[in-house]
Amino acid sequence: MSDPSCVFCKIVAGQIPCACVFQDDATFAFLDINPLAEGHLLVIPKRHIERLEQMPAESLMAVTRHLPMLGQAVMKVVGATAYSILQNNGRESGQDVPHVHFHIIPRRAADGLGYRWNASKYAPGRAEQVHQRLLAALKR
Amino acid sequence: MSDPSCVFCKIVAGQIPCACVFQDDATFAFLDINPLAEGHLLVIPKRHIERLEQMPAESLMAVTRHLPMLGQAVMKVVGATAYSILQNNGRESGQDVPHVHFHIIPRRAADGLGYRWNASKYAPGRAEQVHQRLLAALKR
Repeated sequence: MSDPSCVFCKIVAGQIPCACVFQDDATFAFLDINPLAEGHLLVIPKRHIERLEQMPAESLMAVTRHLPMLGQAVMKVVGATAYSILQNNGRESGQDVPHVHFHIIPRRAADGLGYRWNASKYAPGRAEQVHQRLLAALKR
Repeated sequence: MSDPSCVFCKIVAGQIPCACVFQDDATFAFLDINPLAEGHLLVIPKRHIERLEQMPAESLMAVTRHLPMLGQAVMKVVGATAYSILQNNGRESGQDVPHVHFHIIPRRAADGLGYRWNASKYAPGRAEQVHQRLLAALKR
């Protein structure tokens, strides 16, 4: 349920102080102390679980149900009109703490934030290959 | 329910072709044709809704419940060990299509992707101010 070496588990347990803005049985939301913008929140499951794909659908829904309310509150408080939700899985994605967390990042025009958008195109026939493999993987 | 001028509503309705990998009553998932990496998926509610904070919790849960399964399948098919989930709200956040969408972006070491991480610190006393205002906004 809880990992004694996990910094987010320690925060949930009150062993490390934080500015909690919301919690219920399943979910804990608090200010990121190294924010990308004022009001940057972290929204986590109380139970220790490392990555999204290890999370039962019900546990995930118990966390995500609060994102609209939290996004709305953050915008209102910091006077932003936009926000990004970011959730990374695995070191290569930038996940720094191996406990599922959703970032809510308030956004403003020309704030220098955002995802690096180096979009490309599929080579001819390649999208169809990836498509068929995904369909096969999802059938199992 | 559907916006005739919305490109994602047209995709859901079959008026614009796409490589759909999953759908149910509430959710539609398909390959992004301008991917950040092979397998980059878009996961959307079938109903037209512009931004997350306009979405009833139940509608959001009906979409997010499928993210673990889809993240797992994408990693498997493209041979990645990590992925980011990104969901933008508002033009200033980089939301290009005003219909709620979750990006699932497969990630690899040194792939040049990821969120621009210009983290800062709160000035003394400022985090506590933001914290109190968030608590007040969430009480209403």
